[in-house]
Amino acid sequence: MYTLGEIAKTINAKLVGDTDIEITGIATSLSANQAQLTYINGKKYKQTLINSKAGAVILNNDLLKNCPTNALIVDDVYLAFAKATHLFKKQVVPYQGIHPSVKTNHAKIAPNCTIGKNVVIGNHCTIASNVVIEDNVTIGNDALIQPNVSILQGCSIGNKVVISPGAVIGSEGFGNAQDQQKHWHSIAHLGCVVIGNNVSIGANTTIDRGTIEDTQIHNGVQIDNLVHIAHNVIIGQDSAIAATVTIGGSCMLGKRCMVGGGTTIASHISLVDDIIVTGASTVDRNLFEQGHYTGFTSISKHQKWKRIQVWLLNLDKIAHYLNIKLKKLKEK
Amino acid sequence: MYTLGEIAKTINAKLVGDTDIEITGIATSLSANQAQLTYINGKKYKQTLINSKAGAVILNNDLLKNCPTNALIVDDVYLAFAKATHLFKKQVVPYQGIHPSVKTNHAKIAPNCTIGKNVVIGNHCTIASNVVIEDNVTIGNDALIQPNVSILQGCSIGNKVVISPGAVIGSEGFGNAQDQQKHWHSIAHLGCVVIGNNVSIGANTTIDRGTIEDTQIHNGVQIDNLVHIAHNVIIGQDSAIAATVTIGGSCMLGKRCMVGGGTTIASHISLVDDIIVTGASTVDRNLFEQGHYTGFTSISKHQKWKRIQVWLLNLDKIAHYLNIKLKKLKEK
Amino acid sequence: MYTLGEIAKTINAKLVGDTDIEITGIATSLSANQAQLTYINGKKYKQTLINSKAGAVILNNDLLKNCPTNALIVDDVYLAFAKATHLFKKQVVPYQGIHPSVKTNHAKIAPNCTIGKNVVIGNHCTIASNVVIEDNVTIGNDALIQPNVSILQGCSIGNKVVISPGAVIGSEGFGNAQDQQKHWHSIAHLGCVVIGNNVSIGANTTIDRGTIEDTQIHNGVQIDNLVHIAHNVIIGQDSAIAATVTIGGSCMLGKRCMVGGGTTIASHISLVDDIIVTGASTVDRNLFEQGHYTGFTSISKHQKWKRIQVWLLNLDKIAHYLNIKLKKLKEK
Repeated sequence: MYTLGEIAKTINAKLVGDTDIEITGIATSLSANQAQLTYINGKKYKQTLINSKAGAVILNNDLLKNCPTNALIVDDVYLAFAKATHLFKKQVVPYQGIHPSVKTNHAKIAPNCTIGKNVVIGNHCTIASNVVIEDNVTIGNDALIQPNVSILQGCSIGNKVVISPGAVIGSEGFGNAQDQQKHWHSIAHLGCVVIGNNVSIGANTTIDRGTIEDTQIHNGVQIDNLVHIAHNVIIGQDSAIAATVTIGGSCMLGKRCMVGGGTTIASHISLVDDIIVTGASTVDRNLFEQGHYTGFTSISKHQKWKRIQVWLLNLDKIAHYLNIKLKKLKEK
Repeated sequence: MYTLGEIAKTINAKLVGDTDIEITGIATSLSANQAQLTYINGKKYKQTLINSKAGAVILNNDLLKNCPTNALIVDDVYLAFAKATHLFKKQVVPYQGIHPSVKTNHAKIAPNCTIGKNVVIGNHCTIASNVVIEDNVTIGNDALIQPNVSILQGCSIGNKVVISPGAVIGSEGFGNAQDQQKHWHSIAHLGCVVIGNNVSIGANTTIDRGTIEDTQIHNGVQIDNLVHIAHNVIIGQDSAIAATVTIGGSCMLGKRCMVGGGTTIASHISLVDDIIVTGASTVDRNLFEQGHYTGFTSISKHQKWKRIQVWLLNLDKIAHYLNIKLKKLKEK
Repeated sequence: MYTLGEIAKTINAKLVGDTDIEITGIATSLSANQAQLTYINGKKYKQTLINSKAGAVILNNDLLKNCPTNALIVDDVYLAFAKATHLFKKQVVPYQGIHPSVKTNHAKIAPNCTIGKNVVIGNHCTIASNVVIEDNVTIGNDALIQPNVSILQGCSIGNKVVISPGAVIGSEGFGNAQDQQKHWHSIAHLGCVVIGNNVSIGANTTIDRGTIEDTQIHNGVQIDNLVHIAHNVIIGQDSAIAATVTIGGSCMLGKRCMVGGGTTIASHISLVDDIIVTGASTVDRNLFEQGHYTGFTSISKHQKWKRIQVWLLNLDKIAHYLNIKLKKLKEK
């Protein structure tokens, strides 16, 4: 907990409002309450600002007149937000062994695991060697956590979940703000990872925690090895994600989606329910219509590929040379 | 070991045959013996069924008349098979320390390793800190197993093998059957991973165990970091697989293949000997002729790329507009 | 330390020069001193050979006349070099616990970490459970090393560095020489990984050590999860590398580059400062001009993609059929 004055000092903001108000955390502009800090980055969020119930808002000076609460005025809102997050990040103290506060029942836990404070492990769980579970993690019944898995602070895992060796649940998201000298300032990710029931997570897969809210893996989702799931992703019920898929920050996948191995989904992409993506594709736009999608270059003999690439990289010029108009094509 | 009656109950099958026969495991339709269960999924395997030596077969009712042995009749064969596999999966009991049954000679083993029952470790092996080796693993002479590696139950590793930090050998394959409610049911993978001599495996690489038979990495294969090798893959002698390659389930690579980094090979693909694949390619068909293959889009300035993609995504319409026929092209 | 005679015997070379000279290590042809061995692979390095200050050089017989120092004559220089590297690789003896020689101050270290000889850990570092730090590693002040990280021998890490769970620093590079029987012989990588200040490294990311010189990650670089950085890569100050990027051996990235997730950069590629690469691209040539680059196939409905690929794989024939000349296109 910090006073607003302390926060203003840390992020180098001009405070307009109550220096002594106590701030207990950070929340989104839509959900922040009177004890929480939020930020508004740009005029397009003006109406959200006007409706905000937050205890304080980080913003630019030109939005001050629309601010219904205490204001922290800065030039670079995102950078100031990045600095503020670190105030509210819980530091984990390295620990060895199984903390006496751990609650469990009929669980088989390898004695060399590391399990932190206030962890709840459901009935009939199996926790293999070298697993590290940080403070305040909750695991449901009948989980199988395989060797060398790391589950970081505060994450929550449902019933009948399998986590394969080397997987990491709750790593920091990759969010960084740049200052004027082009140095990066990391955002401390304050959200967690919430995993539903009957979920399976593959070996050496990594799932990042959310920035403010949680990354969510819904019931029945199957995830293969070496998959990367970034901060604030939501994966809908019964979706299946094959190996080495990369899912960028804030993506939302619907129910029963199937994503083939090696696919990259760019950040902030939405897929509706029942989307199938062939492996090795790049999903560079939202997919709003159910169906089967693909995007990669089929393999050729190398010499042929070289000839094709020459023409492909001149395809716009070919069209121009042949005087083809897009409009005409679409009419056909 | 289960009686056929117990299995029928577990997978909800109608049993035609001997309820009391004892089944000791699951095998493929070609290899199953009288004490083993197999499955036949579809009429195209009718002849295999007729020749089967299995103790029992999971199949659809319409193949019952061709079944030479005990039958377990179900509507969804693959789903029933998935459920049956779990009966035969050995549960590993979490263990700490080095089990007294471990056989070894002149090995240097970090005392904080976890090594299960009936493990054989060859002469002059080095096993670094935090390595987890589950029950019934065999490792040949002169192996170097680096920190935080997990080798799961029953896998077999040859002589002079190097396994880099964080690699996982023998993780579950990504095979799941869907029920009518579109929920996934995992297949318990009963095969192992068999690694030959003089093999090197990179950091955080994952190699899945086979479904029924084994995933095989033959002598002399070199595998880089963060590679994914799915269930039942066979990689031929002296092949080299660069970093972050994804090899889908049941792929077969010949001898002396070289696969560049970042390549994705779709499931069930075969490559003959001496295939070279440029990095970042997608191998979406079998490669039956020796040679050098490539398939990706070369990099461009972003603005140019955007123009090219517009035309690429209309390439079929351009061809149609220009009234080009594939047949004519091929004649040229 | 070996005499040149011992080395000649190991790599099966004809020695022309002083059998008894003592060789303490291997260095590049430009930097090797009188106590070091180097190699010259091909006539294009003739001038480098003539200027060499090395104690001995592995080379082909036809360059012997240009050799100013002791010569080790072989048919296959690269293979002989590969064999020689293993003489100078320090073997790590598996160790448990925190070696008494470790120097540290106000560090919080989980008691179950493994920390080798002559390790220096700066002030106020936090080292979480199951971390393995091999001999001669140096870590600066205020580092946070998360669970299950492996940092291999001799690597050096700056101040305020965060290493996320499961990351591997200093794994062997993927360099192998082929003999006449097409068997691979690994090169023992004698360089290290040198990481600057304010660097962040994601979960399960792997950074390989250099062959002879070091892999370098400069100050302020941000690296996401599951990234592969190969041997001898240099990443310039304040660059940001998103998840699952693959950077091939000996790549050089300038300052403030931003590489999107899922991108593959081929080996030996250079990027100047301030390059932006869209995620999922393949960087298959040097990028010498600042700007934003992209290279992948946008996603389509699968049926449309199939039609497009047919034409794409005939694009060279289409151009020929339409009698389009590249020269004409470029004139436009």
